[in-house]
Parts: sequence; C-alpha cells; structure tokens
Amino acid sequence: MKLDRLWINARLATMEVTGTPYGALGSGSAIGCRDGRIAFVGTGEQARGHDAAETIDCAGRWITPGLIDCHTHLVYGGDRAAEFEMRLEGASYEEIARAGGGILSTVTATRHADEDALVKAALPRLDTLLAEGVTTIEIKSGYGLETAAELRQLRAARRLGRERRVGVETTFLGAHATPPEFTDSGAYIDHVIAEMLPAVNAEGLADAVDAFCEGIAFSPAEVERLFQAARDLGLPVKIHAEQLSSLHGAALAARFGALSADHVEYADAADVAAMAAAGTVATLLPGAYYTLRETQAPPVALFREAGVPIAIATDANPGTSPLTSLLLTINMACTLFRLTPEEALAGVTRNAARALGRDDEIGTLTPGKWCDLAIWDIERPAELAYRIGYNPLHSRVWRGE
Amino acid sequence: MKLDRLWINARLATMEVTGTPYGALGSGSAIGCRDGRIAFVGTGEQARGHDAAETIDCAGRWITPGLIDCHTHLVYGGDRAAEFEMRLEGASYEEIARAGGGILSTVTATRHADEDALVKAALPRLDTLLAEGVTTIEIKSGYGLETAAELRQLRAARRLGRERRVGVETTFLGAHATPPEFTDSGAYIDHVIAEMLPAVNAEGLADAVDAFCEGIAFSPAEVERLFQAARDLGLPVKIHAEQLSSLHGAALAARFGALSADHVEYADAADVAAMAAAGTVATLLPGAYYTLRETQAPPVALFREAGVPIAIATDANPGTSPLTSLLLTINMACTLFRLTPEEALAGVTRNAARALGRDDEIGTLTPGKWCDLAIWDIERPAELAYRIGYNPLHSRVWRGE
Ligand SMILES: [Zn+2]
Ligand SMILES: [Zn+2]
Repeated sequence: MKLDRLWINARLATMEVTGTPYGALGSGSAIGCRDGRIAFVGTGEQARGHDAAETIDCAGRWITPGLIDCHTHLVYGGDRAAEFEMRLEGASYEEIARAGGGILSTVTATRHADEDALVKAALPRLDTLLAEGVTTIEIKSGYGLETAAELRQLRAARRLGRERRVGVETTFLGAHATPPEFTDSGAYIDHVIAEMLPAVNAEGLADAVDAFCEGIAFSPAEVERLFQAARDLGLPVKIHAEQLSSLHGAALAARFGALSADHVEYADAADVAAMAAAGTVATLLPGAYYTLRETQAPPVALFREAGVPIAIATDANPGTSPLTSLLLTINMACTLFRLTPEEALAGVTRNAARALGRDDEIGTLTPGKWCDLAIWDIERPAELAYRIGYNPLHSRVWRGE
Repeated sequence: MKLDRLWINARLATMEVTGTPYGALGSGSAIGCRDGRIAFVGTGEQARGHDAAETIDCAGRWITPGLIDCHTHLVYGGDRAAEFEMRLEGASYEEIARAGGGILSTVTATRHADEDALVKAALPRLDTLLAEGVTTIEIKSGYGLETAAELRQLRAARRLGRERRVGVETTFLGAHATPPEFTDSGAYIDHVIAEMLPAVNAEGLADAVDAFCEGIAFSPAEVERLFQAARDLGLPVKIHAEQLSSLHGAALAARFGALSADHVEYADAADVAAMAAAGTVATLLPGAYYTLRETQAPPVALFREAGVPIAIATDANPGTSPLTSLLLTINMACTLFRLTPEEALAGVTRNAARALGRDDEIGTLTPGKWCDLAIWDIERPAELAYRIGYNPLHSRVWRGE
C-alpha cells in the first residue's frame, strides 16, 4: 500500500488488549498512515513492503496513541486564584461567598465573556494539554446556566477544535448547578429540559449530556428526568456521581446506558455491578480528589473485579481542579488511587476513547483508527506515570500530521 | 545612574518584608540592573531619572525574584520507573530489593556513570526547572557513597552551573545511606569523616554538608560526629530530619547553627524552638510527602508562631520525589500543607535564599542583589500557587540577562 507517512525504528504501546503489557511491539516497529488514518502497524521488516511518501526515523522512541482528556471544563471566564488565596488565609466559605467566590463567580465571569474571550482564555490551557501529547479533549458547558451562555460555551469549545489540531467532543452540562435566577433545582431542571437542551440539540452543539448528581447539586430524580429527555433526543448521557456521597447516580446513569460515571469515589458494589452490566466507564478524576483533599479513594478493586473500564481525566476547571496536565493526572491516578502505570495509560487512551463513545476511531494504535500519536523520549511507558512535573513528549501527530 | 537594562510597566512582588503582601509594588513599577545586579527598584516616574542601555516594556506583567529550588538531588544515574511500576503491580519491598530496586539501584547506576553521563542525564531535569523561572538550584551528592563517585556527582553539579545560566549551590550528602561495602553505619560515618569529607573540601566542591538523620539512615550521634567535622572545616550544615519519625535531628542541627532542617513533618515544639533560636530554616518537601502518601503534615502553625522561616523545594530525586516542577511544589505546599500562596512564594524566594545562606545575594528584589528575575503572565501572584500543571512564565533573567 502507498502510505502518506511511515514512522520506523519505534517501540509501540498500541494499548490494544493483546495479553502483552501495553499491547507493546518492541524495537524496530513501525506505524504508517494514509488519509489521516492508521494504515499499517507492524515490524520494520513488514514495513519495507510499503512505499511511503515520507519516512520518519524514531530512533527507538516509544509511540503511544495520542492522549485523550475525556472530562474537562476547559472553557470558562475568570479564574479563582483570589478565592484559593482567601481560603488559605483562613476565610470561611461564607466569607468567600460574600466576596463573590464559588462556582457562581465563574458563572458570572462566563456570562460576561463573549465567544472570542472564552476562546482566548481557554487556548493557553488547551495548548498546555497539547504540549503533553493530547490529541482529543472533551469540553463541557455548565458555567453559563442560561441558554445563550451555555450555547456560547459550547460554540467556543467547538471553535477550539478549529483553532488547534485536536479533536473536541462537547458535552452539555446545563445541570451543573442551579443558577441564582432559580430558587428551586427542580424548576431549573424543568427549564433545562424544556428550553436549554432542545436549543443545544437544535444547533448540534452537544455530543453528550451530563449532570452533577450530588446533595449540593441535583437529585437522582431530577437527573433521571433530564436523562429521559436526552434519550428522547437520541443523545448519550454521562454523570458526575458519588463524588462526595453515595446517591447511586452511577447506577442510575448505567440504567440509561451512560458512557461514563465520573468521580465515583463513593460508588458501592451495586453501582459497580450496574456500570459493568451497562458497559459504563468509570472516569476517575484525581485532580479534584487532590485539590479537595478527599480521603475516600474510588473503589478501584471493585472496578477491576467487575471489569468496569477505568478512564482518568484532568477535570480541568477553575474551582476544584485547576489542573491542565494529563501526565500529572496519570501520576496522581497511580500515586493516589494505586492504578498501575499501564492502567493509567489505558485510562487516557483506550478507556478514555470508550468514555467518549469514540473507541471505534481513537484510543489504540489500530489500523483504521485516526492516526493520532504521541512520540516520547522515554525508555519504558511507566516513565509517563513515574515522573512528576516533567514532559518527555518528543512530538505529537494528529490525523497523520 | 546609567543602567544596563530597565524593565518598566511592571508589577513587582519584591518579596521583601514591607508589611504589604508579597512586598508588592503596583502597576507601572520598574526595576533596573547594572553589572548583573539590581541597581534600581521603584516607580516608573523614578525610573525616568535613569538612563538605560535597554528598556523592556513588561506590559503590566508581574516580576518576582527568580525562583530558588533549595533542596534537590538532581544529579544521579538511571531512574526508578520500573520499581515504581513493580510496586503498583503489587510487588513487596523485598521483591523490589531482590530485583535490584531501592536507593542502592540509584547508587549502582550513579557509580557506573561518568561525569558527562551524569550531566547529560540531569540537564533535561534542570531545563524543566529553568523553564519555570528557577535561577538558583541546590544540588546534593549522596548517590555515590564512595569518594570518587561523590566527587564526580559534585563536579557534575558544578558543571550544570556552567552549562546553563543558573546559580548552583552544592551540598555534600555522603551521609545519605550506608553503602553495601559497609555493614555498620557508624563505620561508614567514620569513613565519611576521615576520607570523603576532606577530599570534597580539598576540591572546594561543597557549599554545605548534609545528613539523613532517620531510623533507616543515620543516628543523631552519628550525624553529630559528622557535623563536628564539618564545623572544624568551616562548612555550614543542614539536615534531612523528622521525615518519618521524631529523632530530634532538627534540634541537633540547630545546635550546629544549621542553615536548614528539611522535611520536618515530625518536628515537635522543642525542635521548633531550637530552630527559631538558631535561625534555622524549615524546608518543607511536599513532593516526597505526596509520593510516599504520608499523613503527618509538618507543624506549620508552630513554625509560624516561633518565627521559623519556611522554605519549600522539589526534593527532586529518583525515588521518593521524581518531581521537577517548582510551581507544582508551590501548589502542593498550599494544598497539602496549607501554606498561603504568599508563604509558598516566600518559600521559593526569600526563605529559600536563607536556607542556602545566600540571602545577602538573592531571594528578593532588593538593590545590590543579583538581578535574577522571573516575569509572569499572571494577574496576581496567587496564580502561581493556584494552578496545577500550568506554566505562566513569560521570561527569565539571570544576573541581569
Ligand atoms: Zn467535572
Ligand atoms: Zn532530600
């Protein structure tokens, strides 16, 4: 076959489930692309059977699938550095709220930002992720909490995918918090269902629908109504659940065939069984766990036993996880949640793709998928998990380039 | 005065103790250098009284003192990624030791590396720190544990200061662990005192002498003998102490007028009082605390009450803190140890300089000190602590350039 580009003299962590750690192919392996997709994976010997317009010698470097950050709130106005400082200087949550802090400060700043300003603010954060080999990112709305502002957030997210060479998946998270105009979360969910979700769907701005199911946010009954509406529109769902308490939002989401249940520190055996049955991914967010100094780690052993795929993500957001390093997230998942380096890497490749419902297109080095690659100056894949605050990326390839 | 270079239209976090947070000077401030040293700090109005060969418009950016990483083990051979992975895959410490893991694996790799190899391995780690605005770094020996290898480590550390524009302070840490040739830690300390320390001193390779005082390392009595020998040579001392248990190494070091006592999670009121009386800095190392999943945080309130200066550092090392981000260290110090952002920034500037005995030359934006600057794309200094895995450095100046 005539290839557009061929990378030779590489080691490949295909992340396919082959029985070999990392689905690895050793020294002298090669990978080729054509029309942006992986067209060949094999030995250097096999590669010689292909003609390539361009051949790149990887000098023994490791190639992994391009990394996938499958849970972010990357688009927002303002920041919360002042609030972070106030809290460490001893201010109470009430004092911070009175000073305009908390999630509503981000809502206010986001509502006041136009699309250009949202894009401009998000780009440096996105660029930080791309510099670590990220090739696909999920971005949620949820700081607008009114129709126009939610639409604007999602449009800004889509535009990031045109401003940079990266795949962007958007998620409508109108059910993130109840905005100040509503005193009742149920009435707000009615509004989300009646007006916001249809408007988002009409513009085709959301690839999925998310909700924050927690005592401080929305009840399982409210989330269920929203998920029913999403199902009626044919949109897949996912959920923020069991982060601070056990409401069985994860099991609820699984009943709707959710792509993922995220955070899930407090998931119990019944939640896990429901997720396993539905094929729902557990997306772990160690950045929020770290920032909030939580002590209840997610039930990784239960997920393993039940065969629930585990993804990990930055949860990049201005309040509970101002984190824009997916490599650090990998280290945190190992250090704080005791994932193995291989599990953590699967969590930002194969299983992250599944959490986005995109495992047919990305997440492993498999012929037919997009040729999204991260090429690393490392001697073994575990280095991606072991180091803290160090970026060994050599180069990044998105859709073959 | 005729200045070599003048930065105008800046905001300055001088980190001087002025009663103003961060010792800040607001919008429109300026800083000038001559012969590599700060020659002017003041308002834009005052700056107009000076002639400058070059003027740089900072467009409102913040300038802080160049950051100082005052405790690292940056020079070593090999890495410990395989061991990190084995442990997460369930291997016991015994299995890891049998597979050649632990600190002795780093000792073996370091002994087998020549000076060029040590420099080459350390440079990417150093460059990662410099990219975040570090202008001075302390580097310890302690993976040679035999005279020739310790000398080689220290020479490599010094050479890093010639390969890059950065100040390097070296510390002799022969008393890091007992090497396999010795079965008795006391006999090894005798050897350190009789042979290694004089050899290091004869070449002028150490700015200070350090020791690891812990049940698994050296006893207070052994450390005391070493410190006596250091004092006899006129070398200042510092200590790794109270990391895993309370042996009162911090108080011991204070009796020798130590520059700093480092880790100090288990320091008690008596240790703190001794440190305060001696002017010994408490250097906190949150990267090791995080990596080892410790739960005993250092007694920050006691240090504050007693007026013990608090520094923070990466402790960059291949085993317990493979961390090469000083910004992340700042965030960890706030998140895990509840330092305020201002305390954390003082910990990598003013107090880190003091921990190196170099506060006459670096650590604050004060006329007469070296003109080591970090210039940041931020709106307030707290952003340096708030963000995780994000580098807002605009540019870095070392000795005026
Ligand atoms: Zn989230
Ligand atoms: Zn150390």
